[in-house]
Amino acid sequence: MAPVTADGEAMHALVERLYPICRSITGDGVRATLDIVGEYLPLQVHEVPTGTQVLDWTVPQEWNIRDAYIADGTGHRVVDFAASSLHVLGYSVPVSAVMPLAELRDHLHTLPDHPSWVPYRTSYYQPQWGFCLAQETLDAMPDGAYEVRIDSTLADGHLTYAEHVVPGQVADEVIVSCHVCHPSLANDNLAGVAVAVFLARELAERTPYYTYRFVFAPGTIGAITWLARNAERIERVRHGLVLACAGDRGELTYKQSRRGDAEIDRVLQYVLRTSGRPHRVNAFTPYGYDERQYCSPGFDLGVGSLTRTPYAGYPEYHTSADNPDFVSPEAMADTLAVCREAFAVLDRNRRYVNLSPYGEPQLGRRGLYDSLGGRSDAKQAQLAMLWVLSLSDGEHGLLDVAERSGLPFEAVAVAAGALHGAGLIKA
Amino acid sequence: MAPVTADGEAMHALVERLYPICRSITGDGVRATLDIVGEYLPLQVHEVPTGTQVLDWTVPQEWNIRDAYIADGTGHRVVDFAASSLHVLGYSVPVSAVMPLAELRDHLHTLPDHPSWVPYRTSYYQPQWGFCLAQETLDAMPDGAYEVRIDSTLADGHLTYAEHVVPGQVADEVIVSCHVCHPSLANDNLAGVAVAVFLARELAERTPYYTYRFVFAPGTIGAITWLARNAERIERVRHGLVLACAGDRGELTYKQSRRGDAEIDRVLQYVLRTSGRPHRVNAFTPYGYDERQYCSPGFDLGVGSLTRTPYAGYPEYHTSADNPDFVSPEAMADTLAVCREAFAVLDRNRRYVNLSPYGEPQLGRRGLYDSLGGRSDAKQAQLAMLWVLSLSDGEHGLLDVAERSGLPFEAVAVAAGALHGAGLIKA
Amino acid sequence: MAPVTADGEAMHALVERLYPICRSITGDGVRATLDIVGEYLPLQVHEVPTGTQVLDWTVPQEWNIRDAYIADGTGHRVVDFAASSLHVLGYSVPVSAVMPLAELRDHLHTLPDHPSWVPYRTSYYQPQWGFCLAQETLDAMPDGAYEVRIDSTLADGHLTYAEHVVPGQVADEVIVSCHVCHPSLANDNLAGVAVAVFLARELAERTPYYTYRFVFAPGTIGAITWLARNAERIERVRHGLVLACAGDRGELTYKQSRRGDAEIDRVLQYVLRTSGRPHRVNAFTPYGYDERQYCSPGFDLGVGSLTRTPYAGYPEYHTSADNPDFVSPEAMADTLAVCREAFAVLDRNRRYVNLSPYGEPQLGRRGLYDSLGGRSDAKQAQLAMLWVLSLSDGEHGLLDVAERSGLPFEAVAVAAGALHGAGLIKA
Repeated sequence: MAPVTADGEAMHALVERLYPICRSITGDGVRATLDIVGEYLPLQVHEVPTGTQVLDWTVPQEWNIRDAYIADGTGHRVVDFAASSLHVLGYSVPVSAVMPLAELRDHLHTLPDHPSWVPYRTSYYQPQWGFCLAQETLDAMPDGAYEVRIDSTLADGHLTYAEHVVPGQVADEVIVSCHVCHPSLANDNLAGVAVAVFLARELAERTPYYTYRFVFAPGTIGAITWLARNAERIERVRHGLVLACAGDRGELTYKQSRRGDAEIDRVLQYVLRTSGRPHRVNAFTPYGYDERQYCSPGFDLGVGSLTRTPYAGYPEYHTSADNPDFVSPEAMADTLAVCREAFAVLDRNRRYVNLSPYGEPQLGRRGLYDSLGGRSDAKQAQLAMLWVLSLSDGEHGLLDVAERSGLPFEAVAVAAGALHGAGLIKA
Repeated sequence: MAPVTADGEAMHALVERLYPICRSITGDGVRATLDIVGEYLPLQVHEVPTGTQVLDWTVPQEWNIRDAYIADGTGHRVVDFAASSLHVLGYSVPVSAVMPLAELRDHLHTLPDHPSWVPYRTSYYQPQWGFCLAQETLDAMPDGAYEVRIDSTLADGHLTYAEHVVPGQVADEVIVSCHVCHPSLANDNLAGVAVAVFLARELAERTPYYTYRFVFAPGTIGAITWLARNAERIERVRHGLVLACAGDRGELTYKQSRRGDAEIDRVLQYVLRTSGRPHRVNAFTPYGYDERQYCSPGFDLGVGSLTRTPYAGYPEYHTSADNPDFVSPEAMADTLAVCREAFAVLDRNRRYVNLSPYGEPQLGRRGLYDSLGGRSDAKQAQLAMLWVLSLSDGEHGLLDVAERSGLPFEAVAVAAGALHGAGLIKA
Repeated sequence: MAPVTADGEAMHALVERLYPICRSITGDGVRATLDIVGEYLPLQVHEVPTGTQVLDWTVPQEWNIRDAYIADGTGHRVVDFAASSLHVLGYSVPVSAVMPLAELRDHLHTLPDHPSWVPYRTSYYQPQWGFCLAQETLDAMPDGAYEVRIDSTLADGHLTYAEHVVPGQVADEVIVSCHVCHPSLANDNLAGVAVAVFLARELAERTPYYTYRFVFAPGTIGAITWLARNAERIERVRHGLVLACAGDRGELTYKQSRRGDAEIDRVLQYVLRTSGRPHRVNAFTPYGYDERQYCSPGFDLGVGSLTRTPYAGYPEYHTSADNPDFVSPEAMADTLAVCREAFAVLDRNRRYVNLSPYGEPQLGRRGLYDSLGGRSDAKQAQLAMLWVLSLSDGEHGLLDVAERSGLPFEAVAVAAGALHGAGLIKA
């Protein structure tokens, strides 16, 4: 794994800053999150009114919460939203009541197998109220009457999401998408947000080939909203990556797009394999993060997903144990490095056509060949040129050349540049 | 292997009842066999006259036999057709003569490696006469003169075969074909006949999707006759299975169609693999049973073959040791069970089209989704719905969904039913 | 490996005879070589003038050399071209000078890791002069002044190559190509030349199906010249093989054509695999011998390369250790045998069409079937006929039949002959 770098520490600091905010699929928590991200990156923030039809869905009412607690007979708050945003069932309707523990239990969620952890639960599309708490907290609650209060609002408002665009040489786009709807969970998905932010900043330092569009949106309904509002853009989206769970200490996992052989699939697998990192490649499943929406059969975009330990694959998943200690600067730096390497390949993976395809062109008279034959030392640069010439038939791209030849992509790209400069190939 | 069931015993009883009859490719033995099968299933019996041109072949003369024996000088029948139909070379021309053993030997067939077994031999298309006997019987025959007599007739008549049709919801057909030309051999193919009979009875209890046509015909010439007389039906034959050697105690063997990737191939392989039964899958060869004819390159039908130990793969093959003890009720019940499971998959393996393919449809408002997010228990039914939605692009069928998802076909079929009921997919 | 045969010894004798000649890409060395080859095979020799444009290249000036040496102060020749043609840098410009060792060193090439070997070096397309010598010779040279003299000529002339054609039944061609530009190197490529010569002689003993064209040409520029001058012939070139390094004691190596699945690839791999020889199959690379030119993407011919130890794969490669002792009669006879076997398959690998594709044709009435059914001994000939009938759909050739059936190609070819004779299949 990559050593700790300034980036790793900076990403971790961003995670810690965003952690306390109570996010949900709508509401001020998302806005507060995007305000902070906006300090790092210029963002275009979109507000979509409640009731807007988005594909098969409707933008729901906006949820906001100010306070919530369970207090015992002495007024002591045994469960307090102020301590952790996880304590309230996401999208809880308001409640203000006094009830015996026996009745309250129907509204309490715990993790008996992890008695000190608080679970994360939501009920977005069915009106309910509830609290999440540690099993050991519940066990310590004596029978008796409790005051329960959730000071929340469900009302017409907006769904909020944001975009940041790094302009490229062409209008074809790569989208990088992160969900921003989870409350105090660090790996899922503040780490993904942090990696995306720093990736965008790096890409902006040069003009990449593709235009890179970063989408920060609530899960499911946010991605669906983006897709619904960008119908004309979809055909320009050539590749995409959903970033999530980007900071835990597990090995990297690439989940293929539904197509399975999209260019993004090949690039990520190539970079992970040739980098020597331990990693997994998983086939597409229609379960997980927003690749579900981007890869739905009507769109079927070439969008994969990069995580460390994948969706729901670790015990801390969707619990209070997914806190800033659970993610590491090194892991985030490593995820960022793979994204950087992958996009460097994707961005240069052109198909060329050999303009001198009958026999080899005479490289020597163009200054591209060492004229003293017979030296046995590896002539990687010349070999790369021969490979590019051999496979530049309009069918194969530079990644094909790298894979077939076993040469580093970098050497292949440099060779293509030299041949292009000599007029021997055209894009 | 499946436990003994009423079906297993009933199938074995049918095998025992059919066993003594002397069948051949034509003649009264086939008719007597079909009469008994007709007690279980209504049959349409076809009689095709000698001399009829059928594809590249001509229906031969009809062979019937009343008696045959080799008697020694005292008149004792040392070999007697009445004891076993195998004793006479199939299609023997008549003979009535006295000759020394030395001359007779040219007409005797034994199995020196299995001295107590009687081989099964025929000479359909070249006029010969002969006897099959145990090597130990031959060894006990002293030199001297023997009376040999075969009271057979080769004369113009008919080739006989039968069909039973289970009407389905569509006119597209599945054919199940069994050869009925072998004399006293239990596994080859009375067990196949018995399994086919009980399979047909089960299918008739409901209206299957496909129309199932059961063909009981003599090997080679019978299948060729059926193909010749059903030219207009062939294009409606979507799938088929040749059933043979269905009762020995060996593991199940599926032999692929010539196409190798026909739907019947995928279904049988899927059912055998997921059932956990030990089994083999063999590639097509142009040798074996009547799949040779159905899969000939002009027809190239999607017809596989299901046996237990395959064609010619056991020492008892084509000998008197292939008797009713060689087949077991359990094995036949197991073969029947696999056919039942396979046709249950085949019959429901539809391709659907997702009518809401842009993003996921909102399952929750249609009552198809558990609205309380975050529960970690496997939601197989929901996962099956997501998989069906994801792959219902007109290219993939439900078997593809089951294979790609790893979910049971049954769960996938149920999910497709629910989605179809909700108007989210169409067939 | 094959035992020593007359051919092995004869091929080795040819290698020894050709070995001393100083060949290069042009000049009298090539002509002297072709004169000797012409004693074995009638050759059509082509002379292409200097300056002729051939594809992207230009035929260079002709190089000839009469003498070359480095002499010490006493007049003693410490390095002498007369002892080995390797001593002079190929295509050296003339030089006649006296210079101190320190200055001379820039023009000296040695192999420090193999101090007794003389390397082979050239500078075809950049004017230089130089000597190659053993490191131990150099180590023994005291400081002081040396006379250096290279009596060479670089002048307008010709590039020389030759062809030998074995006429076949059809105009479609198989080319067998050997480079003839290397000076005193036995395996690379006098062994290849010798195998090609004896292969051509064998093929001429009958009329093969294809027309076989043997090309003896200098590497790179020679193949390019042949391609440039045979533009109209290229489309008739159906298959090809580059023969090189055909005599060392390593195992055989087949290098696939750029297409990777060309018929020549399948044939060579089939023959090597079924012959039981230890061997390697390497994927195409755009580096090596003249397959580079034949497989350049504009031509993309089905041309593979057969060597023993491949290009640059042995320490003796391009050194004085690649001498006649390095190649063996047995190895050359073995390479010849594989070529013979491969071309025997290639030449008969026809696609047939079954003229009786609906059901099996009745082989018995055509005398092609043993009418007495039930014999359990393998009936390979009949099985081969059934396989040919089954796969002769215009898509599959006899090699497909051999591979799918597991039957020997010979048996399949014989079966096809019988079926063709009976009018059951057509080519």
